[in-house]
Amino acid sequence: MNCTKDSISLHTNFAGEMAVEIKKEFLDELTEVIRNRDSAKATELIQDMHPADIAEYFEEINLDDCTFIFMLLDAETKADVLVELEDDEREKLLETIPSDVIGEQLIDKMESDDAADILGDLDDDVQEEILSHVKDVDQAGDIVDLLSYDEDSAGGIMAKELVAINENLTVKQALGEMRDQAELIDEIYYLYVVDDNNIFKGTVSLKSLLFSSTNQKIVNILDEDTVSVKTDTKAEEVAKIMEKYDLVAIPVVDSIGRLMGRITIDDVVDVIRENAEEDYQLSAGITNDVNFSDSVLKQTKSRIPWLLIGMLGGVCSSLIIGVFDEEMASYTSLAMFLPLIAAMGGNAGVQSSAIVVQGLASGDLDIHSTGKKLFKEFRIGACNGLICGALIFAYNFFFSDSFALTLSVSVALLSVIVFATVLGTLIPLLLKKMKVDPAIATGPFITTFNDIMGLVIYLLIAKQMFALF
Amino acid sequence: MNCTKDSISLHTNFAGEMAVEIKKEFLDELTEVIRNRDSAKATELIQDMHPADIAEYFEEINLDDCTFIFMLLDAETKADVLVELEDDEREKLLETIPSDVIGEQLIDKMESDDAADILGDLDDDVQEEILSHVKDVDQAGDIVDLLSYDEDSAGGIMAKELVAINENLTVKQALGEMRDQAELIDEIYYLYVVDDNNIFKGTVSLKSLLFSSTNQKIVNILDEDTVSVKTDTKAEEVAKIMEKYDLVAIPVVDSIGRLMGRITIDDVVDVIRENAEEDYQLSAGITNDVNFSDSVLKQTKSRIPWLLIGMLGGVCSSLIIGVFDEEMASYTSLAMFLPLIAAMGGNAGVQSSAIVVQGLASGDLDIHSTGKKLFKEFRIGACNGLICGALIFAYNFFFSDSFALTLSVSVALLSVIVFATVLGTLIPLLLKKMKVDPAIATGPFITTFNDIMGLVIYLLIAKQMFALF
Repeated sequence: MNCTKDSISLHTNFAGEMAVEIKKEFLDELTEVIRNRDSAKATELIQDMHPADIAEYFEEINLDDCTFIFMLLDAETKADVLVELEDDEREKLLETIPSDVIGEQLIDKMESDDAADILGDLDDDVQEEILSHVKDVDQAGDIVDLLSYDEDSAGGIMAKELVAINENLTVKQALGEMRDQAELIDEIYYLYVVDDNNIFKGTVSLKSLLFSSTNQKIVNILDEDTVSVKTDTKAEEVAKIMEKYDLVAIPVVDSIGRLMGRITIDDVVDVIRENAEEDYQLSAGITNDVNFSDSVLKQTKSRIPWLLIGMLGGVCSSLIIGVFDEEMASYTSLAMFLPLIAAMGGNAGVQSSAIVVQGLASGDLDIHSTGKKLFKEFRIGACNGLICGALIFAYNFFFSDSFALTLSVSVALLSVIVFATVLGTLIPLLLKKMKVDPAIATGPFITTFNDIMGLVIYLLIAKQMFALF
Repeated sequence: MNCTKDSISLHTNFAGEMAVEIKKEFLDELTEVIRNRDSAKATELIQDMHPADIAEYFEEINLDDCTFIFMLLDAETKADVLVELEDDEREKLLETIPSDVIGEQLIDKMESDDAADILGDLDDDVQEEILSHVKDVDQAGDIVDLLSYDEDSAGGIMAKELVAINENLTVKQALGEMRDQAELIDEIYYLYVVDDNNIFKGTVSLKSLLFSSTNQKIVNILDEDTVSVKTDTKAEEVAKIMEKYDLVAIPVVDSIGRLMGRITIDDVVDVIRENAEEDYQLSAGITNDVNFSDSVLKQTKSRIPWLLIGMLGGVCSSLIIGVFDEEMASYTSLAMFLPLIAAMGGNAGVQSSAIVVQGLASGDLDIHSTGKKLFKEFRIGACNGLICGALIFAYNFFFSDSFALTLSVSVALLSVIVFATVLGTLIPLLLKKMKVDPAIATGPFITTFNDIMGLVIYLLIAKQMFALF
C-alpha cells in the first residue's frame, strides 16, 4: 500500500524538502479522490493520516468536502480531529452533524477537558441538548463540572482523567488499579496518590513503579514534594510554574487539597503561545484576539479603538502646533522636522517599553528599585540621543542655512529620545503597580503620548533658540 | 522541622496569597542565616528548596552569598541549580569555581543537553579544560557530539540520554535493559526501539509496556507511526511539530535514520517562548535578543539601528515637506495635521502587519491567494478609514475656518489608513516570499515607511484642495 507509506512519511520526514514533495502528491491525490466522492479510496488514503494533519487539511478544503471525509473516519479519529480544528472551522462542521451523534459518538470519546472546551464555545441550549445524549454519566458529569470553572483558570484547562491511587495500596495493587483506570487516558506520566478522603498526597512516576518491588507500599515510594496548583490559579500562572519546574503534568487540587484533575503540558503550551500573541497584538494596537480569518467587521472592531486614540493624539498635536502658530509662520522650516521628532519619540519609547513588558511577563523583572532602573534607561537614552543628535546636527549644519533650526532639532532630538526612553520604562512599571496589563504600554498609547511630548519639547526649545540666534 | 514544611508549601500553595507571605518569611530567615554565614542552619533551610527556586533566589542576592550557598549543596542539586540559572548569573558563578570541580562534580551529573548548553556559552579553551576533567568518557563524548550541532537545530537542543531497546527483545528483557539504562535519566516517557543497525523503528510507551505480557516481543507492540525529526531540523520547526502533534518527547534521527537523541517538551517550551519574544522585540525595533539586565552598551547597540532608520525616514519627511514649502508657507494650518496623518499611517500599518506576521508564524496563514487577502484588508482599511475620516471631518468642520483644510485632512486620513492597512499586509507576505523574517515588517520599518507615504498623500491632496477651494 504505497499511499499509506506516503502518509506516514509525512510525519517521519516532515522537515525534509523531499517530504514536502510527497505530501503535495499525496494531498493532490486525496483531493482528486474527494472530488470523485470515492469513499473506498478516500478511506484508504486517510487511514494513516494523523488527526492533526486531517484537521490542517480541513482548513484548506470546503465544508462539503470536510463533511464527506469526516463521515468516513472512525469515532475516535472523528473526536481527535474535532479537538485539533480551529474554533470557527469546528463550529461550522458541528452544525452539519446531528446533536445526538455529537453526544453519543464524539463527546463520549474525548478527554473531558477537550470536550468541555468544545462545548464551552456553543450556546447553552445546544450544550444541554448534546450533553443529554452523552451515554457515559461520569463523562457528562465531569464535563458539567469543568464547564463551571473560569476558562482562564487551572480548573478551566484541567482534565478529569487521571490515575488516582490510594496511598495504602501496594505497588502490585496499584498496577492493577492503574489497568482499570487507564483505559480512557492517552498518556500517563504519573500516578496521583490520595488518602482515604481524596486529599492529594504526592505522585509516583511510572519509572519508580517499574523499579520498585511489587510488595512495596505506595506511601513509601511517593514523591511528596510534588508541585500542585489550585482550581482557581490563573492559567498564566500555571504556565509559569510548569515552565519553571520543567513539568509535563501538574495536579490540580481544590481549596481543601482534594485532587480535582490534572493539566498536561500540551494545554499549557497553548496558554504560553496565546499570552505571547496577546502581548504582541496589544503592542500593535489590536484590542481583541483576532486572526486573519476573522470577519471584516470583527477585525475593524478590534482595530478601531486604538486608531481613535491615535487620532485623539493627533488632534492634541494639532492644537499644540496651533499654540506655536507665530513661530511656525515665521520659521516655516520648523515644520519640516515635526514628523522626525514625533516619530523618534515614539520609536525610542516603544523600544524601552518592550523590554520592560517582556521582563515583567517572564518574571525576570520586578517593580522594586524603580529609581535604579530609570537611571539605567536614562543612560541608554542619553547614548542613543547623543548619537542621533550629533548626526542630525551634522546633517543640518551642512544642509540647512538656519543655525537656530540646526541647534533646535538636534537638542530637541536628544531630549526627546532621553525623555521617551525613560518614560517607556516608567509607564509599564506604573501600570504593573496599578495591576493593569503593562503590555498596553507598548501599543499606540505610548507612541501617541511620546509623539505629543516630543512636539512640545521641540517647539519649546525652538522658541528659545529662535529668540537667541 | 518547621522550615522544611515552609519551603515545600512554597510549591504546593504557590498561587495563594498566604503562600507568598510564608515565602517572604522563609526567605527573610534564609537571608539572615546567610548574613551570619551559619552553614549548618543554611544547609537545613535550603535542603528542601527546589533547584528552580534556589536559582531564582540567587538572582536576588550578591555573588558572594550565591557562592556560599552553592558550596553547601550536594553535587546533584548544584548541577540542577546551574541549569536553571540565567546565562549571565551562571557565567559569574562558574568563574568562582575551579574547572576541575565543574568537570568532575557538575558536568558529570547533568543531562548531556544541559551540559552542552552550559559549555557552549564558554570560551573554547575553558570548554576543553572543563571537559578534560569529566571522568565519564561517554558523557564527555556525548557533550562533544552535541556541541558540534548548530544550537538552533534539533541536534543542538536534543539530549543523548534515552532508553533505546532492540526490536527483537521481549517485554521482560526490555524492562531489564531499561533498568540498566534509565539510571541517569530523570523522566522516561517512551522507550525508543531500534534495529541491529541502530536505525529508529518506533516507540513503546511505558503504559503499553506495563500492560503487555512479559513474553511479548517489542516489535509487536511498538508504535511505528512515531513522528521524528532530523538532527538538522530547525528548532522552531521542532517546536511546531511537537505543538501540532501534542508530543512530550520526540526522537531525533540522522540523515540515514539512526537514532541520535531525543528532545523533551521543556526544551521546546523555551524555544516557543524565545521565538515569541524575538518577534515581539523585532516589532518594537530591537535587533538583538536583549533583556533589562544587559549592559547599557549592549542595549544601546541593539536599539540604535532602528533609531537610525527612523531618523533617515524623518529626514526624508523633512525633504518632502521642503518640496511643498510654498503650500506650507501659504497655509500654515497645514502643518498642524502633519503629525496626525503620519501617526495614523504608522498605526494602521502596524496593526495589519502584526496579524499577518502572527498568522505566518503560527502556520495558520500561507502566502497563496495574496490578491484575496489584500482585498479583505482593503475593506477593513476602508471601514476604519471612513470612521476616522468622518470624525476628523466633523471636528474640523466645526473648529477650522478653512474648508479646503477640512476636506484635505479627512480625505487624506481615509486614503492613508486604507493605503497603510493594505501595505501592512503586503509587506510581510512579500518578505516571507523572499525568505526574510516577516517580523521585521512590524517594526519601525513599516511605521517609518507609512509615515512618509502618509505625508506625500496628505500634501498632494492638500495641494489639489487648496487650488480648488
